[in-house]
Amino acid sequence: MSPHPSTTKTYASRAELHSNPTAKRLLGIMERKQSNLCVSVDVTTAEEVLEVVRRVGKSVCMVKTHCDIISDFSKAFVDEITRLSDEMDFIIFEDRKFADIGNTVTLQYASGSHTIASWSHLTNAHPLPGPGIISGLASVGVPLGRALLLLAEMSSKDNLATGHYTREAVRMAREAGPEFVVGFIAMSRVDQEGAKEGEDFLVMTPGVGLHSAGDKMGQQYRTPREVVYDSGCDVIIVGRGIYGIKGGEEKVKEEAERYRKEGWAAYEERLGRK
Amino acid sequence: MSPHPSTTKTYASRAELHSNPTAKRLLGIMERKQSNLCVSVDVTTAEEVLEVVRRVGKSVCMVKTHCDIISDFSKAFVDEITRLSDEMDFIIFEDRKFADIGNTVTLQYASGSHTIASWSHLTNAHPLPGPGIISGLASVGVPLGRALLLLAEMSSKDNLATGHYTREAVRMAREAGPEFVVGFIAMSRVDQEGAKEGEDFLVMTPGVGLHSAGDKMGQQYRTPREVVYDSGCDVIIVGRGIYGIKGGEEKVKEEAERYRKEGWAAYEERLGRK
Repeated sequence: MSPHPSTTKTYASRAELHSNPTAKRLLGIMERKQSNLCVSVDVTTAEEVLEVVRRVGKSVCMVKTHCDIISDFSKAFVDEITRLSDEMDFIIFEDRKFADIGNTVTLQYASGSHTIASWSHLTNAHPLPGPGIISGLASVGVPLGRALLLLAEMSSKDNLATGHYTREAVRMAREAGPEFVVGFIAMSRVDQEGAKEGEDFLVMTPGVGLHSAGDKMGQQYRTPREVVYDSGCDVIIVGRGIYGIKGGEEKVKEEAERYRKEGWAAYEERLGRK
Repeated sequence: MSPHPSTTKTYASRAELHSNPTAKRLLGIMERKQSNLCVSVDVTTAEEVLEVVRRVGKSVCMVKTHCDIISDFSKAFVDEITRLSDEMDFIIFEDRKFADIGNTVTLQYASGSHTIASWSHLTNAHPLPGPGIISGLASVGVPLGRALLLLAEMSSKDNLATGHYTREAVRMAREAGPEFVVGFIAMSRVDQEGAKEGEDFLVMTPGVGLHSAGDKMGQQYRTPREVVYDSGCDVIIVGRGIYGIKGGEEKVKEEAERYRKEGWAAYEERLGRK
């Protein structure tokens, strides 16, 4: 099988052509910062989140949050992470994994204590509830220039996002068009089969680590090279492997740089393959 | 096919035998209040939620919340809905639809602005991420006597929770055992096939309405009798059909009673079938 067309193009050339403002900005950042690294910040206070972000911000194209695990989530937190995203040049990706019917996700995205749509450039949804989840979220996100990823695959052990399910996710994304759905959470180039002329989905991959083999709750890890070079994915998502490293601020910064370089090298190697 | 064993037993006899404290309490309430009605409260301020709960509380066995759409969610709100749940005798079901890996859902359930596990007797999860989602949530919920439903089916148009997916949900619930997983969100008696001696899953069904045919975002409706008598489900979940009715407090109370009576009549008819 020949490589997927997106994997032989530079992030810069893809940025030029992308019609969604968030995807365009993200691809531009990736090129500028030579980074396809997203850090997933799974800590439970605003100050801890901001500390991690300040440490890794220079090295990443994107920061992934779980706003609903932050005990003191507030407007001040939103203002500060937004300020950092401008200053340090990264996208904010709220990993909400919306998974309800259209009417409910519309409220969950726009309302509540978190008003996710007001600050999160990118979010994601499970295709499980059917196309209504996309139209519901799009009604809130499109006017704000936001973007959505569909979860086509997962990284956890014995998950059910496989085979037919994954193909349906890709089909739903294609049917929705590129105005709002800009890519997938997946372990591989799920959009290989049936790719349409000119389509450009970003594939972002969690469960990336250089050391560990997994956790006790079913998470499984692969290396940046496996993900970017072997599997043709665009963004590597690393969590505890970076911010959880012992040794303080410098160690965390070094580890973020190490992942950034590994991810970027795999991308350059991939470009050379064409 | 002979009817599923649970559908020919009274809620009272099932309450006696159930080992999970929340399922036991719920089945007891259902018998006492002659109600298999759950009202889903999808409004966006604490005062609106509490107003609906005060109106429907007498008629329901359970109130279903989406805490993350409530803009002024607070400790005071939790205290008041908990007080009402004791006073008016109903279970609180936070319809969170957890859908992430074990490590993340553990934090989402226990931490954050909402600390769901601290006040919600029952919650639910998609089986999509694999068994790690159950063990993660169980580590928080079991010590508190909480209970979990798995979403085996959904009510929205063209959803992907069908066939193999649904069977896997049931298999995961059986493997987890009855300590924490007490049933399913489903449209039908998904536990019909391969039922084990003595197992008792509660099947709770959204998308119930007496009038409407659906909304514009893919939600589809069935009547209480179709759900309880024809499909053998245990709890009917009604949302906008009750609290959204025009005409003020008395009208909402009347409509809740109407659904309660319809649901209960379908249950009694079902018992008579044995």
